[in-house]
This record gives sequence, C-alpha cells and structure tokens, in this order.
Amino acid sequence: MLSVFALDGIAEIVSGDDLASIIGDAAEGRLQDGDILAVTSKVVSKAEGRMISALDREQAITDETVRVVATRAYPGGVTRIVENRLGVVGAAAGVDASNTPHGTVLLLPVDPDASARVIRSVLSARFGLRLGVIITDTLGRAWREGQTDVAIGASGVVVLEDLRGSTDAQGRSLEVTLPAVGDEIAAAADLVKRKASGLPVAVVRGMGHLLDEAAPGARVLVRPSEKDMFRLGTDEAWHQGFDAGRAARD
Amino acid sequence: MLSVFALDGIAEIVSGDDLASIIGDAAEGRLQDGDILAVTSKVVSKAEGRMISALDREQAITDETVRVVATRAYPGGVTRIVENRLGVVGAAAGVDASNTPHGTVLLLPVDPDASARVIRSVLSARFGLRLGVIITDTLGRAWREGQTDVAIGASGVVVLEDLRGSTDAQGRSLEVTLPAVGDEIAAAADLVKRKASGLPVAVVRGMGHLLDEAAPGARVLVRPSEKDMFRLGTDEAWHQGFDAGRAARD
Repeated sequence: MLSVFALDGIAEIVSGDDLASIIGDAAEGRLQDGDILAVTSKVVSKAEGRMISALDREQAITDETVRVVATRAYPGGVTRIVENRLGVVGAAAGVDASNTPHGTVLLLPVDPDASARVIRSVLSARFGLRLGVIITDTLGRAWREGQTDVAIGASGVVVLEDLRGSTDAQGRSLEVTLPAVGDEIAAAADLVKRKASGLPVAVVRGMGHLLDEAAPGARVLVRPSEKDMFRLGTDEAWHQGFDAGRAARD
Repeated sequence: MLSVFALDGIAEIVSGDDLASIIGDAAEGRLQDGDILAVTSKVVSKAEGRMISALDREQAITDETVRVVATRAYPGGVTRIVENRLGVVGAAAGVDASNTPHGTVLLLPVDPDASARVIRSVLSARFGLRLGVIITDTLGRAWREGQTDVAIGASGVVVLEDLRGSTDAQGRSLEVTLPAVGDEIAAAADLVKRKASGLPVAVVRGMGHLLDEAAPGARVLVRPSEKDMFRLGTDEAWHQGFDAGRAARD
C-alpha cells in the first residue's frame, strides 16, 4: 500500500527561510517511520536564494548550460534542450520564470543532494524517525509528449534499484533490471502536489524498504553523455556528420 | 490524498482467459467510484494470446518494429531502440522473453486502448462505478538511467492534461503545461506492483478528477517522430549526415 499526501500550511518561501524547519512545522504529527518526503525544487531554490535578477532569461539559460543537446526554433523563440550543471538534460537548464517576480528567474539548487541531506537530517532528528528526502523537478522527455516529475536530489533513499542478477520465475535473468524508483516516487508525488497547486511537499508512505542511509544521491539517475545514444539531437548530429563527410573529401 | 494498492488473488494468466472478469473477481468489494486500475500489459498480452513461439527473439523484435531509432552493439548482442506498432519508442519493441516459457516470446497487446476499454466497460457495469483503466509497460529513457512504467493504453481517464492557457499567480502563462499524468499514474502503480512481484493490477485512488469517458487513449502520449528532436540516435543521424556530406562533394 502506497499513500501520498501533500503537506499544507507551507507559506510562500523566500530567500533565507529555514526550509527544513518550515517543512517540519507543517509535518508535525503527520510523519511515520519510513516516510519519504518529496520536495519541489522550486521551494528549495527560493530558500537558498537562487532567485536572481535577469532581464534576459535566455542569458540565464546560457549561464546554467554545460552542454547544448538540441535546439529548435519556434515562432518567437528557440527551445533549447541542454545539460545543466547537475548533469540533468532538459529544456531551459531548469531556469524557471514562472511564479517569480518580473525581471527575475529562479535557478535550480546548487546541490540538490546536499539540500536533501539537510532536510532529512533536520527532520529525522526532530521527529526521531527514519526518513528519506527527494528533491523533484519537472522534465520533458524524448519520444513522449508532456512532462513528468523526476528526482534531481535525494538523501537516505534508493533512487535506482539494482535488480541485475535477479531472475524471473523461470530462472532467467530479468531484462529490466534498474527501476528508477526515485523518478517514480517523484511522479507519484507530483500527482498530489499538482492537484492542489501551491503544495510544494508531499509525503510518500509505504516505500520504507527503499530507505538506506548510505544510498547515493540522485546523480546516479543521470546517464553520462558518453554512454547516451541520444547525447545530441538528430539535426545537430546530422549536421556534424554532414560537415565531417564534406571535409573527408578534401 | 493518493493511495495505491495491488490486487492479490490474480493467478497466472493464460491465453483465452477473461481478464476483465478475473480482475473483477480480485477487485470484488475493493473498488470505489473514481478509481483507476493500472494493469500490466504483460497479463493483457497473455490473455489475448500474444505469446508466440519464437526461437529467435531478434526476429520477433524485427517483426514488431516500425522504425529503427538507434542501435548499439554490446558484448553478445545489439540493443535496438525502435518505434513499435503503437508508436512507442523503447528497447526491443516491447518483445518480452522474461517469465515466458523457453522458445516463446510475449508481444505487446494489439490495441492496448481497446483492451483498456473492454476492462473498464466490464468492471464499470459489474460494480456500477465510474472507473478508469490504464495499461502499463516498462520503458527506458534517453538521458536518464533505469526504467519507469508508462501508459501504453488508456480508457476513461485523461493521460495528458492540457494546462496551456493556465496562468501562474503572477498572471503569466505556465511554461510546463502538459503534465503526462497517465505516465505518472503508471509510475505510482509500478512502485506497488513491483514491490510485491507477481501482482499485475494496482488500484489508484484519489485521482477521480482525471476521469473522463471521452478522453482519448494513450496514443496522445506518443510524440510523432516528425515532431521529435530525437527521432534518430546520435550515431545514426551523424552517419546519415556524413554520407550526405560526402555525396554533396561528388
């Protein structure tokens, strides 16, 4: 049995807020041992002072970009799929201009795994419970329409189960062996957080078997670009190949 | 509040089984108005007789493939990312050789939206409840490690919310506007189904606002390849470009 509920009573977060304590106040009397808290990265960023003044959102995206994966022009702008500092591939490098004051943008947390560790440590100590924390962000996907929430930070919870070596009922090795449970938890939490907008934290209950103090952070969910069959957009790769093919004749 | 629980009491499904009635027997007394059932595509395929004898799994994959997106050799084989008949891009076209008898493979349902419609219709009539049904499959992703469950069939439930035109608290249009709630529901259900393996059906409760008898099926979650910035793998696109570049010099 999995249950997910949002914490109400969390007011607008501003720079310098003690987010862990604020979440703790909202969670008072509502947590159980083994719970996982899914925290929207936006409130982590706000508390950490990641709102910057930026008249030019495009420049902010450029500044946050480690590597351009693909671009496509649309009427009035350019969609940029990029790898950001965290290794995460998505549109606009996580630079968010919605729900921020005019002339400002919100960047992703500097180190969402560290942010998750602080929240977990404070709440575990306060309530005397084993807890996990996931920091979530919303990403588009290749091949599929729409967006889903994924885990960009994690502490105390396994986000990528390694079932390699497991066998099925016939004794053969399982083909699908790395369930991205961190992303699935983020997705489940989004269903609840989104339903009642303005609720940045959800409690995910019933997944206590995934708690592990020694689990690595959410970076393990990021495929290194050199291993990725889609490290460049189709058009970008085609044009690189075209140039190479033309040069090969010289 | 979202809650998800698996239905127990569903025995091994074989070709010709009346899956809707079997699920109904397992769900007797456990469903509420507004529930969404997430059904693993594997049991739908088995009931529909989609297990075929195939000494050569590779040939079965070829037969199910509409379009090759990318391939990569590994020691002992080739990973093929392909578009299957349903438009879904994934490894091995959904051809499953785990948990099937030696010498057989399991293909995806012919029309998972239709399968979902039958299950929903039978269960809605039997229990007198408004229900949604989602058929799930497990897919890898570009850029991210591991796999998550997604919706490959749906009936009676919105799988792609269209929030375009919505505005944030500052009155600006929301940038992320198409939450893929069908995939998020599939992911939430997977957390429960996977935890206790052998449970192919989960009930997702608390998402009744997504029920809509006129909602389109899961095909709306598939991005048409001509719109996709990642319609070909990087290496494949590069080589196509290279050949074109060389030819341009001739």
